[in-house]
Amino acid sequence: MRTDLLRMAQLVESAMGKASQALLGADLTLAEEVIAEDVAIDDIQHDLDARTINVMARQQPVASDLRTLVVGLRMSADLERMGDLADHIAKLARMRFPSTAVPPELTMTIDEMGKCAGRIINKMASVIEHRDIVRALEIEVDDDEMDILHRKIISTLLDDNWTHGIETAIDMTLLARYYERCADHAVSIARRVYFLVTGEYSPIRP
Amino acid sequence: MRTDLLRMAQLVESAMGKASQALLGADLTLAEEVIAEDVAIDDIQHDLDARTINVMARQQPVASDLRTLVVGLRMSADLERMGDLADHIAKLARMRFPSTAVPPELTMTIDEMGKCAGRIINKMASVIEHRDIVRALEIEVDDDEMDILHRKIISTLLDDNWTHGIETAIDMTLLARYYERCADHAVSIARRVYFLVTGEYSPIRP
Repeated sequence: MRTDLLRMAQLVESAMGKASQALLGADLTLAEEVIAEDVAIDDIQHDLDARTINVMARQQPVASDLRTLVVGLRMSADLERMGDLADHIAKLARMRFPSTAVPPELTMTIDEMGKCAGRIINKMASVIEHRDIVRALEIEVDDDEMDILHRKIISTLLDDNWTHGIETAIDMTLLARYYERCADHAVSIARRVYFLVTGEYSPIRP
Repeated sequence: MRTDLLRMAQLVESAMGKASQALLGADLTLAEEVIAEDVAIDDIQHDLDARTINVMARQQPVASDLRTLVVGLRMSADLERMGDLADHIAKLARMRFPSTAVPPELTMTIDEMGKCAGRIINKMASVIEHRDIVRALEIEVDDDEMDILHRKIISTLLDDNWTHGIETAIDMTLLARYYERCADHAVSIARRVYFLVTGEYSPIRP
């Protein structure tokens, strides 16, 4: 199960990286690639879920193992959703092609959001792989950074100097939300691992 | 388990109804109520999840019952998220108080979105209660209506006559998304019930 979750995490990391690149570079081929590869993430999830339920039914695991399996099902649902969000970002890149969806004054902030998402997902993968609770707590701090970037996007949209109109503002509102939700799911995965390892809820915020 | 899921569905239905009312009537008291009551939904979920894992561990259910329990855990996660979305709508009402968050030309469409969400959630509750697969399929059609309302919001924002500026456009973009995501989760619950009852995936769209 851990191998599958890790594989999903790696695919999500790659999808998010490529989606951001497709978005900022108006790269249609790369966007199509992300959209096509989302199916692979969904497939692993289906397969993992079916096998997990099978293990539960056949091996009648003890309570603690059962808990791990149930938490694993939750993590696979989070990862699947993160893949969807990468897919949404890629679809925005595709919809605005051959234009670039992101206007010049937001390029740097969106790029930072993409990189921040990449760091968070990479750390999340290592939390899954090594059950590393120190890194699980670090992700919460990285997520604060994502919130700051999110607010930066919104204040740029609200600035009197914003000249790109409503359509681009709608795009950027949704885009910022996709990145933020992606980070939220990574935080949620980190918290689940923290709980599995320590038996306690993460001490940072609700 | 079914009783708890139904109870959650009823709380979500009430939360969504009150959130829409608070939003359109700029009713701060009602908004605060929705925000406070979201905790109750989260509590039922925690409690339900803990008891489900307990049942799995103690009674070592057969494969088909196990499948029902796992699907139930997924449904409780969907319901919990729907509660969050009602909470987001209530928080928008609170943030813009004493103004009304929704401008006059969108009042009717947002009201329709709220009513559409109410119908979908009500139908979803009856799908949970009676395992009614006919209604489970109907929800997919209701969701198409939600998509049409969503597009109507976006085209109003993009219309040259839009005079409410970027901030309100951002609010309306997110608001429309909250309603749409809420309906998506109801569809997902209906599909899970359909699968449990028939052993097959819903025939309508992926």
